[in-house]
Amino acid sequence: MIVGSLVRSSSFMGDLLWGARVLVENEGPDVTDLRSPKPHERLAAACAPEMDRVNALIRARMASEHAPRIPEVTAHLVEAGGKRVRPLMTVATAKMCGHDGDDHVKLAATVEFIHTATLLHDDVVDESAQRRGRPTANLLWDNQSSVLVGDYLFARAFQLMVETGSLRVLDILSGAAATIAEGEVLQLTAARNLATTEATWLQVVRGKTAALFEAAAEVGGVVAGAPDDQVAALAEYGDALGVSFQIVDDWLDYGGAGDGIGKALGDDFREGKLTLPVIRALARGDADERAFWRDALERGRADDLDRARAIIDRHGTLEETRVEALGWRDRARAALTRLPDHPLRDMLGDLADYVVARAN
Amino acid sequence: MIVGSLVRSSSFMGDLLWGARVLVENEGPDVTDLRSPKPHERLAAACAPEMDRVNALIRARMASEHAPRIPEVTAHLVEAGGKRVRPLMTVATAKMCGHDGDDHVKLAATVEFIHTATLLHDDVVDESAQRRGRPTANLLWDNQSSVLVGDYLFARAFQLMVETGSLRVLDILSGAAATIAEGEVLQLTAARNLATTEATWLQVVRGKTAALFEAAAEVGGVVAGAPDDQVAALAEYGDALGVSFQIVDDWLDYGGAGDGIGKALGDDFREGKLTLPVIRALARGDADERAFWRDALERGRADDLDRARAIIDRHGTLEETRVEALGWRDRARAALTRLPDHPLRDMLGDLADYVVARAN
Repeated sequence: MIVGSLVRSSSFMGDLLWGARVLVENEGPDVTDLRSPKPHERLAAACAPEMDRVNALIRARMASEHAPRIPEVTAHLVEAGGKRVRPLMTVATAKMCGHDGDDHVKLAATVEFIHTATLLHDDVVDESAQRRGRPTANLLWDNQSSVLVGDYLFARAFQLMVETGSLRVLDILSGAAATIAEGEVLQLTAARNLATTEATWLQVVRGKTAALFEAAAEVGGVVAGAPDDQVAALAEYGDALGVSFQIVDDWLDYGGAGDGIGKALGDDFREGKLTLPVIRALARGDADERAFWRDALERGRADDLDRARAIIDRHGTLEETRVEALGWRDRARAALTRLPDHPLRDMLGDLADYVVARAN
Repeated sequence: MIVGSLVRSSSFMGDLLWGARVLVENEGPDVTDLRSPKPHERLAAACAPEMDRVNALIRARMASEHAPRIPEVTAHLVEAGGKRVRPLMTVATAKMCGHDGDDHVKLAATVEFIHTATLLHDDVVDESAQRRGRPTANLLWDNQSSVLVGDYLFARAFQLMVETGSLRVLDILSGAAATIAEGEVLQLTAARNLATTEATWLQVVRGKTAALFEAAAEVGGVVAGAPDDQVAALAEYGDALGVSFQIVDDWLDYGGAGDGIGKALGDDFREGKLTLPVIRALARGDADERAFWRDALERGRADDLDRARAIIDRHGTLEETRVEALGWRDRARAALTRLPDHPLRDMLGDLADYVVARAN
């Protein structure tokens, strides 16, 4: 088991927003030494020439001849020190499958544009004031700019992927875009609803996080012309990594350190989000506890995070959530074993460990 | 010249929001009898079987297995009695070019989804309370739902066009989506800015209206396998029709009857929008008039619409705006002459007359 102390930092990619100093307690077979350089840094170093081209392409395509507001807003987000984990995944998977053209660079930029567009729209939807340790675009400019610049980036993303000429890639990424939007709507309507099931929760998790990771890894294999079983393995890896990542995020809201730089401790609680530790604690709770959750989540009287944590503790659902994340991490690792041996494959495996190492 | 009395009705397509009882004063060569049935009604009748399939496809694809909010919001807008002018244009152009497959139906639904998505986002951006004579989705549900359901419809649109397997179509429509978003951002930043040029104004017009008309007509020709010069003529027709349509809209804001069902008289004025009659009046105005415009548009003290109308009258720029719209109508008609003789071609020509007949 990995044990570590977590130091949140504002320099890491929006959601993968942590630098971790991890102490490896037990050198078991599924445990990786996560000391510096970190897995995403090793991936970035191994794909540096391609990622330079991705970044140049992003800068070129976020331009607008007519509306300077577009590159201003985009740059605010894109250049806020994100680590480009999603595009990195596309480049790495294409490269390990032997792609030597330019399509993976285009698709990596596509994936980053889709991600940036969803962040712009999410911040409007959530009325957020901070993202990556900086004021959000909706605060610096206005909601209008965030909505419309997001739309522009979606359109630019589709233009870029059309340039690859691959209908299969277009199918995968347009499907991912639909799943993302559907998951966001589902999250909106499931909030403050105590009847939310684990199935609905997983659908939200897939939409808000896993769908784009899955597509990012899958299209890398597709442009490289990898065999179908390998493309399927890459998609499974991306999906499982994304799900484990989001579950860790759910875990952190009740079990994290909450240093106030990234997501604050208790954000989900205050926003009435039904996440795994809550859904399970609620299912096993007595009348008193159910009344507490109803008050806190449905009626928005979420002023007693300590009580919420105590209830979750009593039912052991936070630990179950961590175990669930580890299970998805294992699925991600297992999917990778169906791919040929490659140094990048090993780094992608380490990345899966790194993601769950945040929950300790 | 066409002279008529205009009766606004809430039953016509959002922007083409008028039924017109038009009296034909002079049966010159470029004048069409626009008495009932109206051009869009004749087009709809001629394409009825295809449009039934378009409507069925729209209903099928706006569904969401997981998030019922999506079809609720979409149906509110899509089923509000719109006349589907844009999809009709795709079906009609494909049909007149001899298409007998199913792709024009898919593309027509695509075009309507893109249009619906932009309306949802526009209403959030403009904080609108009414659309097609009904409360807007952002009012009935919330801004969040409008943003996210719009995103879902964009993604569904791309999925639909991917199904046609035509990269050329994907290129055209993703380009149109980028132009639309860019135009909207430009409109946002140009509002209340007295330095707005006619070139910027035209770019906004292209983005908010002409780009989707152009793409809708163009992709009809493409899926039908029409020769390049005919496809180019269709694109030109759509663009010119869209521009003339939007110019008439600008005209109506200062010259219309303003019955309060559609766009109210003076909406653009109060929102500080720099439209053609204003841009030209401003360029020719004296110091007093410039001070008036600065106060009204830049500082938002737009409480004297009568004075604005008087200034515009003095410079004759409202009449110039009408003449400009007629010029674009003529370009639309001229483009059609480069296409083979066909009853649908004639109806598309009549549609161009109908659009400008709103400005009398």
